[in-house]
Amino acid sequence: MMIFKASFMSLLNVSARRPDLHKVNVSNVTEAPVTEDESKGARIRWLINGDDGAPNFLMRHFTIESGGFTPYHQHDWEHEVYVLEGHGKVRYEDREEKIEPGDAILIPPSKKHQFRAGSEQLKFLCIVPK
Amino acid sequence: MMIFKASFMSLLNVSARRPDLHKVNVSNVTEAPVTEDESKGARIRWLINGDDGAPNFLMRHFTIESGGFTPYHQHDWEHEVYVLEGHGKVRYEDREEKIEPGDAILIPPSKKHQFRAGSEQLKFLCIVPK
Repeated sequence: MMIFKASFMSLLNVSARRPDLHKVNVSNVTEAPVTEDESKGARIRWLINGDDGAPNFLMRHFTIESGGFTPYHQHDWEHEVYVLEGHGKVRYEDREEKIEPGDAILIPPSKKHQFRAGSEQLKFLCIVPK
Repeated sequence: MMIFKASFMSLLNVSARRPDLHKVNVSNVTEAPVTEDESKGARIRWLINGDDGAPNFLMRHFTIESGGFTPYHQHDWEHEVYVLEGHGKVRYEDREEKIEPGDAILIPPSKKHQFRAGSEQLKFLCIVPK
């Protein structure tokens, strides 16, 4: 009976839930370590995720400690990145480019990439398809 | 003949064009005024657009002068916004909320919304589906 009640309440919540304004400050979002192999000193905050009602794409915030990096990897979806603070490099296929605040970067699908912090903490947004 | 040559070169360019790393700094992107009615002191920069190879969503940067605002309007696509600088308000349906740097905001499709600068310039990113 308890199980039935819980399921019924869950159903009610789902049916009552409609996409509404979602507003959150980055400082109030819990950070989680990036746990993939070959990453170092990288943390992620999900600012807008699927549970917030986002229909098409999701917004994440990364903090990379000085000397740290995200995995050098590839996947079949794109990244759109905006650098907020710090300097570093984006490694992309067979080359590297410096990145700085105000840089907007598109990593197309299936391209190998990595974000590396320089001598200071690097912060950037990274938007991905849902 | 010149026309044929131009068309042929254009065809070559298109076929040779594959999505590649796109990187641009906001300071190097031309600003355009937001020309919709019922906007004031609002300018837009397209940081990542369809021509850059973005497959699913596009990144824009807005600057709203003190006292300025975007149109109070609605449309059938969502906004995902990140406030970079300044304070202001988001008007959403029948209410208003203060916004500040670090705020991530989802405006779901079909909801009336407006961004208003306060006593200082407001800058934010706004990502939309392609």
